[in-house]
Amino acid sequence: MHGQRRQQQWRQEEPVVGTGPPSMECTVRLAAKEDCRDIMRMIRELAEYEKASDHIKMTEEMLKEDGFTDNPAYRCLVAELPSGQTSKEGFNIVGHAMFVFSYSSWKGRIVYLEDIYVMPEFRGRGIGKKFMKMVAKIGVESKCSAIQLAVLNWNDTAIDFYRRHGATDLTSEHGYLVFRFEEEATRKLALDEEK
Amino acid sequence: MHGQRRQQQWRQEEPVVGTGPPSMECTVRLAAKEDCRDIMRMIRELAEYEKASDHIKMTEEMLKEDGFTDNPAYRCLVAELPSGQTSKEGFNIVGHAMFVFSYSSWKGRIVYLEDIYVMPEFRGRGIGKKFMKMVAKIGVESKCSAIQLAVLNWNDTAIDFYRRHGATDLTSEHGYLVFRFEEEATRKLALDEEK
Repeated sequence: MHGQRRQQQWRQEEPVVGTGPPSMECTVRLAAKEDCRDIMRMIRELAEYEKASDHIKMTEEMLKEDGFTDNPAYRCLVAELPSGQTSKEGFNIVGHAMFVFSYSSWKGRIVYLEDIYVMPEFRGRGIGKKFMKMVAKIGVESKCSAIQLAVLNWNDTAIDFYRRHGATDLTSEHGYLVFRFEEEATRKLALDEEK
Repeated sequence: MHGQRRQQQWRQEEPVVGTGPPSMECTVRLAAKEDCRDIMRMIRELAEYEKASDHIKMTEEMLKEDGFTDNPAYRCLVAELPSGQTSKEGFNIVGHAMFVFSYSSWKGRIVYLEDIYVMPEFRGRGIGKKFMKMVAKIGVESKCSAIQLAVLNWNDTAIDFYRRHGATDLTSEHGYLVFRFEEEATRKLALDEEK
């Protein structure tokens, strides 16, 4: 697979079509391996917004290796400006949405939405909604019955966006907490020989 | 694949070995298709404990179909009593741990732990820890650098268990909230033709 263009696919038989009009609006489409440099840039921008840049271990190489095999570890959409248009900094890719196929023991297949990001210059144009619609469409086609995600409690823009599109807050409504075993705790458990 | 015994595998070349001593203790091993009846029973027991039985859409057939293909939608471990031993109700499988391989845009591959359950009669024997260790071991072998999960805020037993084994609460420490688009909201987004 290395060295050749390979667009992410969730069903091999299905051609990939952006959901937007072809002319003036952004196209939302599945990411190709060549988009990983832009995706990495936007992951950094989002982490800066979330004040968490020092937590990033991700690299462009990891994105390329993990997302573009026959059994990709993640899926990603990107928002692409019409040909010839760029951001102030000269970028043609101005947003991304990363997700995985997860599983609920109550509901079966679900989508876990890891990131939705649109560069500040391009907000308010409905790109976030296009991402949500395409993620939902891919999810439904893949027999998923829900989309789950985590959001930071001070990120009112994101919370408002998710609520407006029909999401409910399981933390306030049902008391869901997110716990994580970080790398050190995970390795300690894995290597612990004690019975 | 249908109709034949097929044990879940994460690496085809690797035989599956329980982590416990072979004699008197429970064996923790990857689930086989034949365990789905027991897994379904325990999913119901856990949902009753979580006061959420009416949310269950899962069936034994879904578990069989989704978990035992070349690209399984979930992974599951079970705890099995030594041969000849059963619970009061006559069950030989007394716990399960369900997980998926997920992805973090900051860290790359991670494990998402959906369920850990041990039947009340068999708690306090270290079965939960055996599950955690085996999940962590599988995760590390699969290049995962963290284990993430959601837990209900009133479930002190589970919270104490996760904390004791090294997990941190991202909700209280960083303000992580869990949001979900349920089936109706997901379908509405997917089918919404409005631009």
